[in-house]
Amino acid sequence: MSKLDNIGFLGFDVFGTVVDWRSGVARAAEPFLRRHQIDIDPLEFADQWRSLYQPSMDRVRSGERPFVTLDVLNRENLETVLSKHSVDYGRIAEAELAQLNKAWEQLNPWPDSVAGLSRLKRKYSIGPLSNGHIAGMLNLSKFAQLPWDVIVGAEVAHSYKPQPQTYLKSAQTVGLTPERVGMVAAHNSDLAAARGSGLKTIFVRRPTEHGPDQASDLTAEQDWDVVAESMTEAADALGC
Amino acid sequence: MSKLDNIGFLGFDVFGTVVDWRSGVARAAEPFLRRHQIDIDPLEFADQWRSLYQPSMDRVRSGERPFVTLDVLNRENLETVLSKHSVDYGRIAEAELAQLNKAWEQLNPWPDSVAGLSRLKRKYSIGPLSNGHIAGMLNLSKFAQLPWDVIVGAEVAHSYKPQPQTYLKSAQTVGLTPERVGMVAAHNSDLAAARGSGLKTIFVRRPTEHGPDQASDLTAEQDWDVVAESMTEAADALGC
Repeated sequence: MSKLDNIGFLGFDVFGTVVDWRSGVARAAEPFLRRHQIDIDPLEFADQWRSLYQPSMDRVRSGERPFVTLDVLNRENLETVLSKHSVDYGRIAEAELAQLNKAWEQLNPWPDSVAGLSRLKRKYSIGPLSNGHIAGMLNLSKFAQLPWDVIVGAEVAHSYKPQPQTYLKSAQTVGLTPERVGMVAAHNSDLAAARGSGLKTIFVRRPTEHGPDQASDLTAEQDWDVVAESMTEAADALGC
Repeated sequence: MSKLDNIGFLGFDVFGTVVDWRSGVARAAEPFLRRHQIDIDPLEFADQWRSLYQPSMDRVRSGERPFVTLDVLNRENLETVLSKHSVDYGRIAEAELAQLNKAWEQLNPWPDSVAGLSRLKRKYSIGPLSNGHIAGMLNLSKFAQLPWDVIVGAEVAHSYKPQPQTYLKSAQTVGLTPERVGMVAAHNSDLAAARGSGLKTIFVRRPTEHGPDQASDLTAEQDWDVVAESMTEAADALGC
């Protein structure tokens, strides 16, 4: 019996691991940028918006501000990016900004994601263990046909990965000890923190999450319990 | 356009509305009762155990005790019922009591539930808005093949229905105003409270939840937005 046989729940990083946020955000931003004559490549705009993601969560992680859900941070970060491009976002209709912020809930899955998740779901309970908020993960699942059983992660724990509380509270919420939870992610730092909290670790390589010149997370940096090139390969490795 | 067209999420009462708790708990209890020579009909045992459900939640609702999840209350209530039958539960193996308490996570759906939910899921996001805890709802969904998108309800809100907070926090968690959430339940009191918080109301009649002599909830006691004889009839009424 493998040490993986006792897993009851697989928790998934979503942005980058299950869905391709970069192309999806760029697609949603393109008409907005054109309408407001903001002269930037939509993919570059997506990268700039995303670059504020970790710093904005850091303020919550450090205790500098109380927990707020990711849609709130994404919206603040959108305003920051627009300001950097000298856009007076206060003059843009609220509904238009809110709509653009919903880009994070309308992202395409990687080509192997739905097939892999559907196979994994037959053997395990599955759900996001993401920094996304519950409503966003729910809306994204309907858009991308992600067959989650439950949604845990940052909002359930009121803390952002890689803080231990996010993993531990998520495991507790699905009724399992950390050792019976597998973390599935394309990011070595996420898996390192998950392992630090006792979870099993499944690395799915996503070498173009950040575009063709990606420099990070190109390889497994530790001996993760599973290392796979796709979600379907992860399903193979887990006997699904 | 009907006032129901704007619904985005359907929240379900589960025990009694989606699954048949009475026969399932009796089935799980039967070998336990036989093994410990407890002379009671298993269905009657299920009724007695269930009869402590509302009083135990009342202590949380009133503020007499802090919120604890339903598995904790069910376990305490099990010990109470055993004591009433002069069983010294302290002499029964912990694992055996824990296993019996899991009866609430291994209940059969009513014959129309899975077909109805599967149809409703194509048009709406769906999930338990139950007094059950998240892990229990998750395990039950795997046992009974309930195709939830998300799990909200008592544990998310740290309050038990029919307190308004349970409905309001569940709506907030799925990112919708109460008016855009439909409560699906076999219990008039649940729907009355949901309506009081602004939710839409879908009554699914379950006239044998409490057995052949059921006296409560045999009819719709208010003009609920939908009144149906089954989950598939509810799907018909909602155009799914």
